[in-house]
Amino acid sequence: MNQSTVPNMICPMPVAPTDTITLSHGEGGRVMRRLIRDRIGAKFGDGNVQLHSDAACLGNLVGEVAMTTDSYVVSPLFFPGGDIGSLAVHGTVNDLAMAGARPLFLTLALILEEGLSVETLDSIIDSIASAARQCDVKIVAGDTKVVPKGAADQIFINTTGIGVHQHTRRMSACQIQPNDCLIVSGPLARHGLAVLAARESIALSPPPRSDSAPLHRVATELLQTLGDDLRTMRDATRGGVAAVLHEWAEESEHAMWVDESTLPLLPESRGVCELLGLDPLFVANEGTFVVAVAPDRVDDALTVLRSHAAVGEPSVIGQARRRKLSPVLVARGLGADQPLDEPIAAMLPRIC
Amino acid sequence: MNQSTVPNMICPMPVAPTDTITLSHGEGGRVMRRLIRDRIGAKFGDGNVQLHSDAACLGNLVGEVAMTTDSYVVSPLFFPGGDIGSLAVHGTVNDLAMAGARPLFLTLALILEEGLSVETLDSIIDSIASAARQCDVKIVAGDTKVVPKGAADQIFINTTGIGVHQHTRRMSACQIQPNDCLIVSGPLARHGLAVLAARESIALSPPPRSDSAPLHRVATELLQTLGDDLRTMRDATRGGVAAVLHEWAEESEHAMWVDESTLPLLPESRGVCELLGLDPLFVANEGTFVVAVAPDRVDDALTVLRSHAAVGEPSVIGQARRRKLSPVLVARGLGADQPLDEPIAAMLPRIC
Repeated sequence: MNQSTVPNMICPMPVAPTDTITLSHGEGGRVMRRLIRDRIGAKFGDGNVQLHSDAACLGNLVGEVAMTTDSYVVSPLFFPGGDIGSLAVHGTVNDLAMAGARPLFLTLALILEEGLSVETLDSIIDSIASAARQCDVKIVAGDTKVVPKGAADQIFINTTGIGVHQHTRRMSACQIQPNDCLIVSGPLARHGLAVLAARESIALSPPPRSDSAPLHRVATELLQTLGDDLRTMRDATRGGVAAVLHEWAEESEHAMWVDESTLPLLPESRGVCELLGLDPLFVANEGTFVVAVAPDRVDDALTVLRSHAAVGEPSVIGQARRRKLSPVLVARGLGADQPLDEPIAAMLPRIC
Repeated sequence: MNQSTVPNMICPMPVAPTDTITLSHGEGGRVMRRLIRDRIGAKFGDGNVQLHSDAACLGNLVGEVAMTTDSYVVSPLFFPGGDIGSLAVHGTVNDLAMAGARPLFLTLALILEEGLSVETLDSIIDSIASAARQCDVKIVAGDTKVVPKGAADQIFINTTGIGVHQHTRRMSACQIQPNDCLIVSGPLARHGLAVLAARESIALSPPPRSDSAPLHRVATELLQTLGDDLRTMRDATRGGVAAVLHEWAEESEHAMWVDESTLPLLPESRGVCELLGLDPLFVANEGTFVVAVAPDRVDDALTVLRSHAAVGEPSVIGQARRRKLSPVLVARGLGADQPLDEPIAAMLPRIC
């Protein structure tokens, strides 16, 4: 009971600054407070409003509130076009954007593996801060846990976001009508291929680059321009475009028909997909989305998408049709349309 | 490119139901959708409003909004008095409650280790659902990731909560004045000792039982009863009461003085602390909190606390004083007051 009279001896961990994360960094004491203050909170400027409270006060929010959560476990942590930090911001911002809401605030919860280098953590936090600034969202609250070596893989990140709806229009596949057009916003499969090549050290020239990017600005402009003619939109992440089309088919009870020849693919992506036998419809994207629009507004949608496209061209890939048998159909060159299976499980695990 | 014409052959994972979690359960396809629909979403009733959208719509929120996030990595997953699921609900509810907000909505993000038994997952989800009902909060959005065996330790949970302030009063240690009284709501150290004994298989009779419990109702009643005389409150989680007192001393610039003889401890907790040489001021709690109140409202505060205490008695443990040298002081029997060190790091890692 007299331990506390011996300075700095009450705990089993060293107090000296180290270049790796230790269990002490996650246990609520001085070591954790300093880590959070100096290496995390300091990077987020005055956006970090949690300060000395258990919860951040966000003030009054005007409009209907949207909320979403995602954990990120991508491996490797860094890949061409992004890293787990930027991905964690873009992914959650995009979930709000695709719902038609304006992203405002994010929370940031880190699970760190003992032994993670502080340099790696710094890089990731810098990337999160940079992406949050770019997206105009504030990191308002956080949490840091450390688990013993072997109990996690370097770092896992949870970002939870809230935003407000600025339009009465809600995104729902139930609003899709037969003959509505399906558009993808840019070249497919870039994120999944970038992570795969980085993880497996597949030397490709040029190396595939992730499409990870925030979509809230283009989503807002689509909403403003198209109004009710924008039926719904969805970023084609895990499960790729195929997963989006299957969900839309199920909800709308119509069929989703795609013409394979119209799928936008960068030449390098096409090569990798053919080499590895991957169908780009199943590969994950992180800044590319599918839009369902009324047929007479396709040109307006394409104009908006082109004005925001950093890479490549949007493309009309198909349309909604009255359901006969298969929920999703692909025209692949010669012959009859072929049913497109729902993704069952993982082509490429841990891509986000 | 012709894989998708062969039913169920596009992915490397089996489709048959299994009794353990596989990588397929985290990859956005049919296996994941079924897991989420049947084993997670179904448990949360109509509170699960995310449905077929990337984000949940919560409607308009009246009042200033509070937001907090926490990840839970406790080991073992089950311990006397709770489990990682109930802890994840209580912990986040309590962060909102201690800030003076009424908890409304939680998000739930799971990181599962490949090989986790579905039975274990079911137990945890049931516990989350039960705790959420008890706290009157809705689980509104979720995320499920699976990482390969060895890349996580069974299951990590993030809950992020939002609530609304129903009072203009904000909790802040800056409001603490000299002579304000410090009260703890119940017996100390129960959670930390329960997890320690369960993890290390220390056979104690009776086994220590966690104090994990929601605090939003008692917090609301304290706020209503005491108004401005309630200076601030904080649940004494990682770092225990010592961490709370050090934070309050730093923010208020006063000293926090505690009389050791007044610390409420169950007899079994006292025995374990003496046996293991643990100072109960440093051991974590998950349903026990510290309150700073104006000296003439102590009886009112105790009356409210007693009306909510499920176990044991609240106790006045000390008071705020003008700072001389040490920020936190403890009177330990005979002799002069002794400085209480700030917790440096971990007495007991992974307790939440």
